[in-house]
Amino acid sequence: MSGSSFGNTIKITTWGESHGEALGVVIDGFPAGLPLCDEDIQIYLNRRKPGQSKFTTARSEGDKVEILSGVFEGKTTGTPISLMVRNMDQHSKDYGNIAHSFRPGHADYGFYEKFGFRDYRGGGRSSGRETIGRVAAGAVCAKLLKTLGVEVFAYTKSIGDIKISKFELGERDINPLAMPDSDAAKLAQEYLEACIHDSESAGGVIECVITGVPAGIGDPVFDKLDAKLAQALVSIGAVKGVEIGDGFAAAKSIGSLNNDCFELDEKGKIIKSTNHSGGILGGISDGDDIIVRAAIKPTPSISKKQHTVNEQGEELDIEIHGRHDPVVVPRAVVVVEAMCAITICDAMLSHMTDRVDYIKEFYNN
Amino acid sequence: MSGSSFGNTIKITTWGESHGEALGVVIDGFPAGLPLCDEDIQIYLNRRKPGQSKFTTARSEGDKVEILSGVFEGKTTGTPISLMVRNMDQHSKDYGNIAHSFRPGHADYGFYEKFGFRDYRGGGRSSGRETIGRVAAGAVCAKLLKTLGVEVFAYTKSIGDIKISKFELGERDINPLAMPDSDAAKLAQEYLEACIHDSESAGGVIECVITGVPAGIGDPVFDKLDAKLAQALVSIGAVKGVEIGDGFAAAKSIGSLNNDCFELDEKGKIIKSTNHSGGILGGISDGDDIIVRAAIKPTPSISKKQHTVNEQGEELDIEIHGRHDPVVVPRAVVVVEAMCAITICDAMLSHMTDRVDYIKEFYNN
Amino acid sequence: MSGSSFGNTIKITTWGESHGEALGVVIDGFPAGLPLCDEDIQIYLNRRKPGQSKFTTARSEGDKVEILSGVFEGKTTGTPISLMVRNMDQHSKDYGNIAHSFRPGHADYGFYEKFGFRDYRGGGRSSGRETIGRVAAGAVCAKLLKTLGVEVFAYTKSIGDIKISKFELGERDINPLAMPDSDAAKLAQEYLEACIHDSESAGGVIECVITGVPAGIGDPVFDKLDAKLAQALVSIGAVKGVEIGDGFAAAKSIGSLNNDCFELDEKGKIIKSTNHSGGILGGISDGDDIIVRAAIKPTPSISKKQHTVNEQGEELDIEIHGRHDPVVVPRAVVVVEAMCAITICDAMLSHMTDRVDYIKEFYNN
Amino acid sequence: MSGSSFGNTIKITTWGESHGEALGVVIDGFPAGLPLCDEDIQIYLNRRKPGQSKFTTARSEGDKVEILSGVFEGKTTGTPISLMVRNMDQHSKDYGNIAHSFRPGHADYGFYEKFGFRDYRGGGRSSGRETIGRVAAGAVCAKLLKTLGVEVFAYTKSIGDIKISKFELGERDINPLAMPDSDAAKLAQEYLEACIHDSESAGGVIECVITGVPAGIGDPVFDKLDAKLAQALVSIGAVKGVEIGDGFAAAKSIGSLNNDCFELDEKGKIIKSTNHSGGILGGISDGDDIIVRAAIKPTPSISKKQHTVNEQGEELDIEIHGRHDPVVVPRAVVVVEAMCAITICDAMLSHMTDRVDYIKEFYNN
Repeated sequence: MSGSSFGNTIKITTWGESHGEALGVVIDGFPAGLPLCDEDIQIYLNRRKPGQSKFTTARSEGDKVEILSGVFEGKTTGTPISLMVRNMDQHSKDYGNIAHSFRPGHADYGFYEKFGFRDYRGGGRSSGRETIGRVAAGAVCAKLLKTLGVEVFAYTKSIGDIKISKFELGERDINPLAMPDSDAAKLAQEYLEACIHDSESAGGVIECVITGVPAGIGDPVFDKLDAKLAQALVSIGAVKGVEIGDGFAAAKSIGSLNNDCFELDEKGKIIKSTNHSGGILGGISDGDDIIVRAAIKPTPSISKKQHTVNEQGEELDIEIHGRHDPVVVPRAVVVVEAMCAITICDAMLSHMTDRVDYIKEFYNN
Repeated sequence: MSGSSFGNTIKITTWGESHGEALGVVIDGFPAGLPLCDEDIQIYLNRRKPGQSKFTTARSEGDKVEILSGVFEGKTTGTPISLMVRNMDQHSKDYGNIAHSFRPGHADYGFYEKFGFRDYRGGGRSSGRETIGRVAAGAVCAKLLKTLGVEVFAYTKSIGDIKISKFELGERDINPLAMPDSDAAKLAQEYLEACIHDSESAGGVIECVITGVPAGIGDPVFDKLDAKLAQALVSIGAVKGVEIGDGFAAAKSIGSLNNDCFELDEKGKIIKSTNHSGGILGGISDGDDIIVRAAIKPTPSISKKQHTVNEQGEELDIEIHGRHDPVVVPRAVVVVEAMCAITICDAMLSHMTDRVDYIKEFYNN
Repeated sequence: MSGSSFGNTIKITTWGESHGEALGVVIDGFPAGLPLCDEDIQIYLNRRKPGQSKFTTARSEGDKVEILSGVFEGKTTGTPISLMVRNMDQHSKDYGNIAHSFRPGHADYGFYEKFGFRDYRGGGRSSGRETIGRVAAGAVCAKLLKTLGVEVFAYTKSIGDIKISKFELGERDINPLAMPDSDAAKLAQEYLEACIHDSESAGGVIECVITGVPAGIGDPVFDKLDAKLAQALVSIGAVKGVEIGDGFAAAKSIGSLNNDCFELDEKGKIIKSTNHSGGILGGISDGDDIIVRAAIKPTPSISKKQHTVNEQGEELDIEIHGRHDPVVVPRAVVVVEAMCAITICDAMLSHMTDRVDYIKEFYNN
Repeated sequence: MSGSSFGNTIKITTWGESHGEALGVVIDGFPAGLPLCDEDIQIYLNRRKPGQSKFTTARSEGDKVEILSGVFEGKTTGTPISLMVRNMDQHSKDYGNIAHSFRPGHADYGFYEKFGFRDYRGGGRSSGRETIGRVAAGAVCAKLLKTLGVEVFAYTKSIGDIKISKFELGERDINPLAMPDSDAAKLAQEYLEACIHDSESAGGVIECVITGVPAGIGDPVFDKLDAKLAQALVSIGAVKGVEIGDGFAAAKSIGSLNNDCFELDEKGKIIKSTNHSGGILGGISDGDDIIVRAAIKPTPSISKKQHTVNEQGEELDIEIHGRHDPVVVPRAVVVVEAMCAITICDAMLSHMTDRVDYIKEFYNN
């Protein structure tokens, strides 16, 4: 089954394993004429790079992107953009009994049953390193979106039970947890230190706000804008839930409170007086900020002793040592941003062929 | 944009509007040789039929399915199965100022901006009637799944704040709210009567349990089994959130509690001691029950006065009268089941080509 | 395998068998706002209708199209257009030993091996009647193309050895063989009468000329405009070869003769001095007329005695009686036109997102 | 538009330009467990390498393949196989007036109109070097096919007017024109020397024979096996025509001659007494050898003076010097083989889900 591609008009295909030669992405269908250089992509990759604080793995990864195709004289050509990051750190090591045991909370057992064997080095394809390709592609899409007035901004909403209660501009980019609330971040750090001390790990929630998307983007049925965002987010490893707008709280609300009334702003533009919908109604953008959230489970790799089974069908106890994030939420923030950027960019391009009058204007000009 | 199809190996394409001539679905790629008759499909359609209690719209819809192709001598032929339901009730009526106003909580405004105009009769393509095609296709996929030992079972988990606290076998199919807890159902009915009295509507949560899926189904990246389920569920109108397994609660848990340990059952089969994962790890089934939940928002059509804007760009107040479910949750239960059945069925077929040894055995036999 | 769909931005899905309840097509992704009525489609369907001369089957088929969805107040809505034609003539009859024998030149044996059994009534899904859905979809696409200045015009180029040697405007639509050369048509009719007399059948070549496609349409690699046209044409039953421009003759030519020089017309527009390329270079339209040809094999159903094998694995002789075209070329002309219209229309819509400046102009207007 | 992918169950995506950093392919959906090493792929790439005789360009290209992902411990893992070839020879040079002129017979003008500008270095994405990715992917698919008893074998059928008239085993791999007839090859070499002397180029026809495909592979409608082969072949640059079996000759034949009778071989297996169909009937394999042909036009790059227009809209004369094949046919033979291998492999995998009994056997074992 060919499940490594995402998108329609713009289609990205990621490839690569945690400890293989390299990882990368091919972006096909991207329009010609966008100025693009390594640095545009590197900025995004650096945000997911490990080793930036004690709360993320200390693995040293250069993660330097190389543009292999699709850019000529500094601009995209309209042909596939191939981006690659070499793995610097794929030296073989002794995985001990972990190599052939099914780590709890990991995809090991599923992979083994699916493919008959698996690349046990760092999870192979199921490693978080697979997201390098997504982040690289997301950087390219985000750059195009910016020229259209669309901004995609994600941040840590909560870690464990600690939730942000204010939004400090700029704070996301300076605190190690990507929380836009310095007080919550402090509490969360204390919580994570306790987790580390206990050989434990934590989860959290990432929220993403997308501004500037005009009304009318998305599709009424299976490719609803929120359905594609949901697929995009749940396709990130460790995500166990997704919400749009009020999400699960909407299920407890009542019609008159949950509906957003339409009104006119001072310029006569249609706006909504509230945004319970999270910017999407019936699968189509309503012109308001698009708001989605993803629930991230605790990192499954913990050094506590865990009971499991190996490939030989024997029960045993394992401890997972090595470089593991006690929480993946901060590094996943840019992955969420990337997936949202790809999804929105693809939908906005698709919209251009929605009406006969658009087509006639394009061709009869 | 062509967004009315879902699935890869089995691909369904729905068509039709609330007040058009008919609605239907084409199921392409469905294997040859499954016994199939109208009744197999009608049973599912009857579960979503309106008018079954005071908590669902009184609109009288026959919703008789017609098999137009793909079945010969009582068995599927391997060619497209075309299923159609005629609309009995599409007589024109006076929609008054609703015809050209944007109903709060509805897709009206997005449709108008997307397509330049819209079918205002009952929401057109964004109507819940679009799900007829999904339910019909889901019935066919569920029948195939049953022959493989897979059962898909959804039910109302909560309405408003009222949540089930026990699971009574058989209860789902006899109470009007599809709740498998007769006590909770009673409370929920009282709550809904209060909603009706107040010209209000309610939401709720649907849970779906899928049993019998072997480990190894799904895909590691964008087409993760849970990512496709998330798309499938959020593509149902009114769904604002999705959870797999512990969902958002996992974000507050810690590694050792959230991880499910593997062990051997008495027959030596690998099982898990808990099921926080909801049967899916890293996008691939782990052999346990698959558990997903969808949050349904309150029905946006309420007879309370609401403020909005019309197509002429004027503000106004509207009241939406007519046949509307005060809560869509009970009728959406079978839609959730259908979408899960389609997704699982498609993924199980895809798995058959995952290994060279499967392929060699198939061809060299 | 789900192989009943064609196209990307506009995706058509056909369904139905020769002797089933009905046949049809769902056109998904078609833009909103095109005026469309039954008659627009019926005109095309009438051109493929049988019984129009002694050279086509006498089967009486009404072939009245019904628009089931996607059109509101006389215009396309942007949602799936579902078109259906009821089979009038599917009464069961005695197929004798043909029911379970593999007819030479037909798909019977392949179907049987593929699906394990087959619908023997008139070929089921492999019948030429499957093209009803294509022609209906082609009519819709051709109407959109006309508003963009694009015309798709196919005709019989040859039947057996008899080839047209002139092009008489209007002649195609009045002679029963769709040949734009009245003299050749006369000779071809004599040839066909001899074929009928000998219990034989004939083949021929259809040519299609598409005018008005601007330069820049198509794609450089797998979805080359001519590659998609080739798939479109060979997907029509009985087509055994395809040519673009000079086709196989180009293989015998030399570079300086086969290359088309570019020059400027009196208005300064870039044109070519010759058109050996058939309007496509490197998979992308060059602004010239697009010219393709399809080779149609002789109708495999003949009343002559033929040797074959049946499902029981016994050799036997069969004679195929009933309503069969001695030549399918004239009726296939509109099918070729339809497939070309769908392919070109889809490619022209796709082009709208090829450049960042197009996208910026669209969104920043 | 995202047109750089081909295939369904197995999907390949090529990327890269003639003078970019590298070229490559991602093979997604390829099954786990096939032994695979660089050498398996290099053998195929060497067959398309330039500089092997005076009839192919003297450009020195190492074309060493690198496996970047999808192989672990010498076997495919089921995850994307990423293959890359570095361009060794992409030093900038002075393209003179060719850089901004539209070369006759090339895609230059179409690219310019499509994307607004183009990579003029060696044709960029429209270069024959794009086929490196196809050949690499074809090598992998051919290896899998071999384990299933399927062989794909292509050769030069004709160059200019010189056609093979015998089939000498082994001759294809030793003569520089890939012709399996040493006498025809000698004549063809004389013809090509004359072409070179005259600053001319030549075309030809490639035939591909695929043996061992069982009956029942393919699909009845748009994804007919021959329709996909036609797309696959015409998607190779310079191909202007395609035939299956008797091809255009069938159009002149009559039913009783063109139909292949079925009979039983000595073991009771169903075979055909002739093979006019080229192994495919109604889009589905009939168990016989599959035979397809592609017509290749003369190399458009010739050093003769040619008239054209430049990007500034001025007419001018150009001469194209440098390393160009006087005929691309011999090097395209392996590209044809690769595209056929990919197409057949994909179709054979798809067939595994065609029947409910196959699925039940797979899952209930």
